[in-house]
Amino acid sequence: MAEKPTFEFHLVATDGRARAGLLRTPHGEVLTPVFMPVGTQGTVKALSPRDLERLGATIVLSNTYHLYLRPGDERIARLGGLHRFMAWPHPILTDSGGYQVFSLAQRRVVDDDGVTFRSHIDGSPHRFTPEKVIAIQENLGADIITCLDECAPPLDYDYNVQALERTHAWAVRCKLARTRTDQALFGIVQGGVFPDLRERSARFLTDLGFDGYAIGGLSVGETKGEMHAVLDLLDGLLPADRPRYLMGVGTPEDLVECVARGVDMFDCVLPTRMGRNGGALTRTGRLNLRNARFADDPAPLEEDCTCYTCTHFSRAYLRHLVLAKEILGHHLLTLHNVHLMLTIARELREAVLQDRFEEYRAAFWERRKGGEG
Amino acid sequence: MAEKPTFEFHLVATDGRARAGLLRTPHGEVLTPVFMPVGTQGTVKALSPRDLERLGATIVLSNTYHLYLRPGDERIARLGGLHRFMAWPHPILTDSGGYQVFSLAQRRVVDDDGVTFRSHIDGSPHRFTPEKVIAIQENLGADIITCLDECAPPLDYDYNVQALERTHAWAVRCKLARTRTDQALFGIVQGGVFPDLRERSARFLTDLGFDGYAIGGLSVGETKGEMHAVLDLLDGLLPADRPRYLMGVGTPEDLVECVARGVDMFDCVLPTRMGRNGGALTRTGRLNLRNARFADDPAPLEEDCTCYTCTHFSRAYLRHLVLAKEILGHHLLTLHNVHLMLTIARELREAVLQDRFEEYRAAFWERRKGGEG
Repeated sequence: MAEKPTFEFHLVATDGRARAGLLRTPHGEVLTPVFMPVGTQGTVKALSPRDLERLGATIVLSNTYHLYLRPGDERIARLGGLHRFMAWPHPILTDSGGYQVFSLAQRRVVDDDGVTFRSHIDGSPHRFTPEKVIAIQENLGADIITCLDECAPPLDYDYNVQALERTHAWAVRCKLARTRTDQALFGIVQGGVFPDLRERSARFLTDLGFDGYAIGGLSVGETKGEMHAVLDLLDGLLPADRPRYLMGVGTPEDLVECVARGVDMFDCVLPTRMGRNGGALTRTGRLNLRNARFADDPAPLEEDCTCYTCTHFSRAYLRHLVLAKEILGHHLLTLHNVHLMLTIARELREAVLQDRFEEYRAAFWERRKGGEG
Repeated sequence: MAEKPTFEFHLVATDGRARAGLLRTPHGEVLTPVFMPVGTQGTVKALSPRDLERLGATIVLSNTYHLYLRPGDERIARLGGLHRFMAWPHPILTDSGGYQVFSLAQRRVVDDDGVTFRSHIDGSPHRFTPEKVIAIQENLGADIITCLDECAPPLDYDYNVQALERTHAWAVRCKLARTRTDQALFGIVQGGVFPDLRERSARFLTDLGFDGYAIGGLSVGETKGEMHAVLDLLDGLLPADRPRYLMGVGTPEDLVECVARGVDMFDCVLPTRMGRNGGALTRTGRLNLRNARFADDPAPLEEDCTCYTCTHFSRAYLRHLVLAKEILGHHLLTLHNVHLMLTIARELREAVLQDRFEEYRAAFWERRKGGEG
């Protein structure tokens, strides 16, 4: 019997440029389009693994930078790997730490070989190289790992030219540095808002060949129009038979509009971060539960939502929890927000499978316009 | 057909002075001995109602003082009452607010008619009288409500004499102030560590007649020996056919030793508060997850514990969550701690029903002695 590949992607159906796919990983299957809740420090904030399972999450993201610093990737390896450590026996994707090093770490110095920085936790000195971040991600043991990239401001052409050279050289080294064969490796397309750089990056990484392609450097300050233009371009350049993962995006609206442009995978801290700040995502807009108009509101966050929060608790109660700084408020709002993102991703898949994507998209925006948020 | 009483207590079995009982309330039955998780602000901190149901909690406590100040008892009444507000359709007990007024509120002035104080939240002025706290508790709609009492330092005889007079006068007024017939009213026995005062209080309240008797003013600075002596005394004075509720107690050890002295009901913030501070209760002692010795410890908090936390997560992971200040750490530790308290209460009941209470008590202390905590 031939050995089964540890990672596969099947493009199951398309409707226009929108895609429905199937990812196979050593820890299970993932139907795309998919929203990946973010578990920065080895936990999706305010949710337990069984909460995530009940919500229908199939894959979570965790952060190389954070887990390397605390509790340490070698410790996690000794304890049986990240799946065991966080009690999530389903697929996991780890980012490369590039974004955090370039946004969070202190006293950062980048050179062609790698990047030296100080921990945002205790100021201790550290160095990431392509080889190092692969070694860390092999210790963590996620199903999908990613190349180290240099994240540049999206509108600075000269910076992006230089950063792209490094990102590409590092992608080569990341590919060579791997010792495990049971993890998929994604390259990261960079190049800011510049079509020539994005095209160069897509061609370089595609020629090199990866299990999937992450799209980095978007949703970091450019306009929606600029983001969509990059996705429109990349849809024609990236291979159809590999998954495309748009890093750090997004909102319900982003899911719809980026699936429309050929994206398969998403992650974003927005649903969980908003939940901890008293905010709710709905199909008609955002609610700030601190608003006094909810003080006596017996309605759920969203009338037809089937999540635990909406089927049990009023806006008035949620507002009370937020004002009283109760952990249950963080939990219930996060639960609803993640439920909405997962539900919309599932609905988008169904729409593609049933060849009614544009109908779904139009109905989504129609409802969005009538909103109170 | 005769109307069913809204509240009943049946003494099902005794073993020595330990008791097994059955409380019937409008929102369901409660088997005693019982530990009531504390939901100060209308939520048991870091747990959802479905978490509590899964843990087997049958009744929770909530705080009149806190809910009166925020979000307001009249608001909760408009929203359908406390059960609906917090989505807990099972029994609830509310305290009278006395303890909080005397421990938490600011610029407190007590007189024979009531007590004037300022909110600990915003400094706003308020006044509690016996009639007012009954009206608040009727707005909240708990199954069991309690009389306003004056909480005195347990070792100050003269203060306790004076406070007891007020507590008794207020108990009379609370009984008269009721307008709802679907709530049980508990009197609160006070008197510090002084046998003559405790006896006077028990006789006065018993003559007045309540659905149950709370024992206040303990676990507030006196020794365990002094607390046990008061319970030993009260066991002979309180009617056998009414539930006894020891307020604000306690630890696993307290449950065993106070059930041994005839107590039926307990509440304490310890399991939830410890959970939020990185602490775990176990049968062998307490664990502080911040301790470096747990950094690589793959074992669960307690080897034979069946809770979600212990069946899925290592001490190393819990320590990581605590150090990283992750909400999941608060949740998982609280879950375990409350599970342990509820489990011990259920075991105590089984031991009484099977006439092996002393055997259980001896085994409990034998295991406790061998502990690491």
